[in-house]
Amino acid sequence: MFNKNLLKAIPLASALLAGNAFADEGMWQPHQLKEISGKLKKAGLKLDPSQMENLDQFPMNAIISLGGCTASFLSDTGLAITNHHCAYGSIQYNSTEKKNLLKQGFVAKDKSQELQAAPGSRIYVTESLTDVTAKITGSIPSSVKGQAYFKAIEKNQKELVSACETSQDYRCEVYSFHGGLEYFLIKQLSIRDVRLVYAPPSSIGKFGGDTDNWMWPRHTGDWAFYRAYVSKDGKPADYSKDNVPFKPKAFLKVNADGVRNSDYVMVLGYPGRTNRYRTVDEVENQFTWVYPTSKQYREDYINIIKDIAPAGSDARIKYESTLASLANYAKNFGSMIESYNKGDMLERKQAELQALQQWINSSKQRKNKYAKALTELNALIAQGKKGQERDLLMGYLGSTNMMSVAKRLYRLANEKTKSDTERKQGYQDRDMNRFTQGMKRVNRRYDATVDKAVLEHFIGLYAQLPKKERNATFDKFFSIGKKFDAKTLAAKLNKMHKNTKLDEEATRLAWMNKSVSDFKNSKDPYIQFAVSQYDNDRKLEKKAEALFGKLAQARPAFMEAMIAYKKSKGEPVYADANSSLRITYGNVMGYSPQDGITATPFTTLEGLLAKYKAGDAEFDLFDNIRKAIADKNYGKYYRKDLDSVPVNYLSNLDITGGNSGSPTLNGRGEFVGLVFDGVYESIIGDWDYDTKYKRAIHTSVPFMLWTMENIDGAQNIVDEMTIVK
Amino acid sequence: MFNKNLLKAIPLASALLAGNAFADEGMWQPHQLKEISGKLKKAGLKLDPSQMENLDQFPMNAIISLGGCTASFLSDTGLAITNHHCAYGSIQYNSTEKKNLLKQGFVAKDKSQELQAAPGSRIYVTESLTDVTAKITGSIPSSVKGQAYFKAIEKNQKELVSACETSQDYRCEVYSFHGGLEYFLIKQLSIRDVRLVYAPPSSIGKFGGDTDNWMWPRHTGDWAFYRAYVSKDGKPADYSKDNVPFKPKAFLKVNADGVRNSDYVMVLGYPGRTNRYRTVDEVENQFTWVYPTSKQYREDYINIIKDIAPAGSDARIKYESTLASLANYAKNFGSMIESYNKGDMLERKQAELQALQQWINSSKQRKNKYAKALTELNALIAQGKKGQERDLLMGYLGSTNMMSVAKRLYRLANEKTKSDTERKQGYQDRDMNRFTQGMKRVNRRYDATVDKAVLEHFIGLYAQLPKKERNATFDKFFSIGKKFDAKTLAAKLNKMHKNTKLDEEATRLAWMNKSVSDFKNSKDPYIQFAVSQYDNDRKLEKKAEALFGKLAQARPAFMEAMIAYKKSKGEPVYADANSSLRITYGNVMGYSPQDGITATPFTTLEGLLAKYKAGDAEFDLFDNIRKAIADKNYGKYYRKDLDSVPVNYLSNLDITGGNSGSPTLNGRGEFVGLVFDGVYESIIGDWDYDTKYKRAIHTSVPFMLWTMENIDGAQNIVDEMTIVK
Repeated sequence: MFNKNLLKAIPLASALLAGNAFADEGMWQPHQLKEISGKLKKAGLKLDPSQMENLDQFPMNAIISLGGCTASFLSDTGLAITNHHCAYGSIQYNSTEKKNLLKQGFVAKDKSQELQAAPGSRIYVTESLTDVTAKITGSIPSSVKGQAYFKAIEKNQKELVSACETSQDYRCEVYSFHGGLEYFLIKQLSIRDVRLVYAPPSSIGKFGGDTDNWMWPRHTGDWAFYRAYVSKDGKPADYSKDNVPFKPKAFLKVNADGVRNSDYVMVLGYPGRTNRYRTVDEVENQFTWVYPTSKQYREDYINIIKDIAPAGSDARIKYESTLASLANYAKNFGSMIESYNKGDMLERKQAELQALQQWINSSKQRKNKYAKALTELNALIAQGKKGQERDLLMGYLGSTNMMSVAKRLYRLANEKTKSDTERKQGYQDRDMNRFTQGMKRVNRRYDATVDKAVLEHFIGLYAQLPKKERNATFDKFFSIGKKFDAKTLAAKLNKMHKNTKLDEEATRLAWMNKSVSDFKNSKDPYIQFAVSQYDNDRKLEKKAEALFGKLAQARPAFMEAMIAYKKSKGEPVYADANSSLRITYGNVMGYSPQDGITATPFTTLEGLLAKYKAGDAEFDLFDNIRKAIADKNYGKYYRKDLDSVPVNYLSNLDITGGNSGSPTLNGRGEFVGLVFDGVYESIIGDWDYDTKYKRAIHTSVPFMLWTMENIDGAQNIVDEMTIVK
Repeated sequence: MFNKNLLKAIPLASALLAGNAFADEGMWQPHQLKEISGKLKKAGLKLDPSQMENLDQFPMNAIISLGGCTASFLSDTGLAITNHHCAYGSIQYNSTEKKNLLKQGFVAKDKSQELQAAPGSRIYVTESLTDVTAKITGSIPSSVKGQAYFKAIEKNQKELVSACETSQDYRCEVYSFHGGLEYFLIKQLSIRDVRLVYAPPSSIGKFGGDTDNWMWPRHTGDWAFYRAYVSKDGKPADYSKDNVPFKPKAFLKVNADGVRNSDYVMVLGYPGRTNRYRTVDEVENQFTWVYPTSKQYREDYINIIKDIAPAGSDARIKYESTLASLANYAKNFGSMIESYNKGDMLERKQAELQALQQWINSSKQRKNKYAKALTELNALIAQGKKGQERDLLMGYLGSTNMMSVAKRLYRLANEKTKSDTERKQGYQDRDMNRFTQGMKRVNRRYDATVDKAVLEHFIGLYAQLPKKERNATFDKFFSIGKKFDAKTLAAKLNKMHKNTKLDEEATRLAWMNKSVSDFKNSKDPYIQFAVSQYDNDRKLEKKAEALFGKLAQARPAFMEAMIAYKKSKGEPVYADANSSLRITYGNVMGYSPQDGITATPFTTLEGLLAKYKAGDAEFDLFDNIRKAIADKNYGKYYRKDLDSVPVNYLSNLDITGGNSGSPTLNGRGEFVGLVFDGVYESIIGDWDYDTKYKRAIHTSVPFMLWTMENIDGAQNIVDEMTIVK
């Protein structure tokens, strides 16, 4: 399944070299729709494409972000639908042993029964998208290079954000497109009273579990409902009983009939990250080193957790979501490696690059303008690869709790010595609410024994690196010399975990307000660790920023050439996904995952029942749904062509993580489903769109309404929506 | 894949209760075709069904048995085609380290290059099928019951066989239908000079290996060619350079175009064993105890071999075919258990039984005639279940080499004290050639360490049974008392394996001619074991024969009722498969293995290439075939509808083990493929034909001819066949 942590999975930022732009490929920015309006209409769009550019209007105003997932308004009183897996944290947050909402599901029969979402939950309504390229890079003198260039961009970004965020009611962010060729400032209304309205039981919302994750055939009811609340004067506000439902400028009508094979569909949402324009070297390194190594590390990580925290133990419960995320990406990377080895992506990238270079070389003017771009970019990419073993291992070490908590707290103390605008992003006043929530959440996902074991394992791997690739400051702290002694390390970590107080929430929150010298005088072993590493970490950060600054000049130069080349062929170019609002369009359709097999575009209730396994948490179904299916109690949702009710369906839409929870719309802009996953063979799509294999998985409206009316007793929510046929 | 050892997999003989006879269900005896001629013509048969009853004529005379597999004549000079996995032993037999025919494949460019098949290889041409029910059971007085009834049947059978087998040129066998309601004497010409003509490399003939076994999509070229030779006067003869190709009365023309979706097809062959008419109790016991337990034992067995004989070791090579067979059935049983748990076979059997009983009870005459049948049968079935734990374990012990060799040799010495006609089947003069071959083959599949470890494991399990279920004679020999000591057992087995001489071929052959007292005086520990168990084994055998005798009366009574009931509804009834010649007909068609997935009826060369994995023995492909596919060098075998050459295809034919190697014929009786497997979901079909899931897998003629002409250099064999379009 797609996961909101997808962004964390891509180690290094950069971007280049496109596949061919097919009719259905592309995650288009709203302002680009006019460029492709002919194609959109031909594919089946009935709405006026220019209307869709307007964020103030239907349908765009109905499309909202949860930060990592997408959602959409389905009523004029702030009712929002997203994926069950996007609302998972809030369902879990409201669950107790006695009243397990994850297991049993939850329906608020009226607004008074709605529950507060997990702390920090937000609904973001995009209000404006402004091209700020001139303000970000236009004013930087051409003499500014490397880290200075990075700093200049960072400063310009922070100034724009600061001017934009007039109060905590708004969240502003500068997004880079085409690796820094364009920048957009996005302003979003930030609604902070979010409530849980309805979630089906996990046996529907998470049906199929890890086994079916990324897989077709699929039978998952991956939906949940929130509601946005604001103060009586219509402004974002902290939770209060007196708050009233938010009234969006637009909401989506729900088409009870859903879709048929080959129908036009589009997904509007916030896709997280794609890498469609990477260079040959980047692709090769990613697929032959980064993914295989990361897959191995994740599998190691999973085995450690499973060994130390057996199923059912308290420790295991704390690590279930970590395990799910590790397994999700181990599977994801596995598919990518498989597809890469089977396919010819690299050869096609090479061919495209050659064609681009020929095009550049065939004109003196183009030669002068673009010839250096790729050479420079490749040199920087080679530079970035140096030390990647260490960096990847340090990344996994950094994912453990005590280390990361200590480092982040000490960084905060250091950043606080500067003025707010001077501070690093993530440590500014605007970030403090999120920072605090993070510090509060630690213990729900932390067990000392697991934390130690993970550190032992990855430090053990790190210690095997040649000395010159290692980090002297880190070596010193853990006494890693020529010979590495696992027992010494284990003893040291034991002592550290035993003596640290950072495993207490109050202690962590207290450290948020302490000074640098408080840290330096502390005897807490993890604070001491953070202090010992700080200077060297900054040195490494500076180096990374210098590289980033160089890339932020080299990559746009390359992308400029690429875009010019594509435009010369009459191909509009879309930017890689970057968590900003995009539109992808296409059709409902099946595919052939393999010679001799066809995936049909719909699954049905019979298929759901056929997967039922008594006593298997992944494939459980309650009595009521099993009986309703066995009795063929389908009522008005029966579809003759399927002799059943459609459950999930496939389309060729171009989506990725971050699109989770995005509404699927028909040509008239009516809600016809929720996208929640891609098929196994499509995972490499983040790098390479293949018309044969790129398929998104949607949950169907008939299944949703049938379940709400007949199984979950959520008729009141159905009644609140505007249902059309 | 289907396997010629299938018969060994079904522990107890018996038979009852049918599913509905659908249009395509059924393995029909030749004489039944007139009963279903309307259906056959409607389905697409162009031949006259009555012609097909005649064994002397085309097409029936072209259908031959290899004993366990089926084959067919494709030329008037004895060229016969079967599955690669049916000729495997002969290919292996002719392989050396230097010239590995399994790996490289083999083509005889002319008759002088043809190689002798493995010792004991036979081609059986069925000459007559005679209903001998009156001679087998008609003359037995009604007072004869139990073991006496069994003995009477056995005696009558042996007399018929003996009168029929006028020389070693003929093999005669009495086959029981409907559990003993009818008996047929089958007379076959037994051709004993069989030569290997052509086998593709395993990378084609066994492509997909264990992984693809029982699976769709499939891409296996599972064919091989033999030739039958006879003496100059046309009679079966031992191998001689002077022998000439056998001239069959009929052979099949080969249709180079193969088949299209929904084409009429039929398979003629020798299906081994089905169980479509078993009682509810038998089905329940089989699926809830026999299969799960056997699956576990097979997995244990596999793990022992893999532990003790690591991949590549000499011992491992000896056990590869044992491993393959164990894995094949572990997978087979797994599928059966899965299908049983998902489906409602038991409920349907129960319903059918109820309907039958209602039909019986609704007429006084029927009540008098049939009412007792089921009660009696069920009582016998319950009796048969007693001690099944011990019997199953003893079966696995009996599969080890030294134990079975010793027991069979001592049995032979005992049987030889009787006249030939008095001897047990398997120990008569007519069996001695096969017996000798068996004794010669032992060392190719025997390693003492593995043999011992398997014995240790299963005797260990046996020792856990309650004393009253154990076998006192066996306990005494292995000192199994209240406490079982694994070390004592291991020491005993060590000594036995160290001191036995039965691991030498010459010794085994010598024992074939020794007397009972020679055995009793022997100090060979395994001979001593065999002698010690003999009397008790005979006691158990007598008990089993008594039960068998009772079943041979009770089951026909029940089947008579069932057949009468079915005929009252106008349904023709086919008998369970019993290795006799049958016809099944139906159509080329795909299926839906699961909601949301369709198996299309054809696979293609592109799919074959897509499965290629360098360095993986299961999915290897030579350069020549990879290049030919990559270059789309398809010539006249290109099929526009597939944009490729068809490799394998699916049909709804009703086949089982023993059908391996059977020709697939179109409506005109032309050869259009070889059947070689069933899909995973169809494995339960041996018990329960399900129109949704029962699919056979065939290798296509275009793939075969394309490979012979373009890849394997077997144009001379193509030229020998009569190719039509």
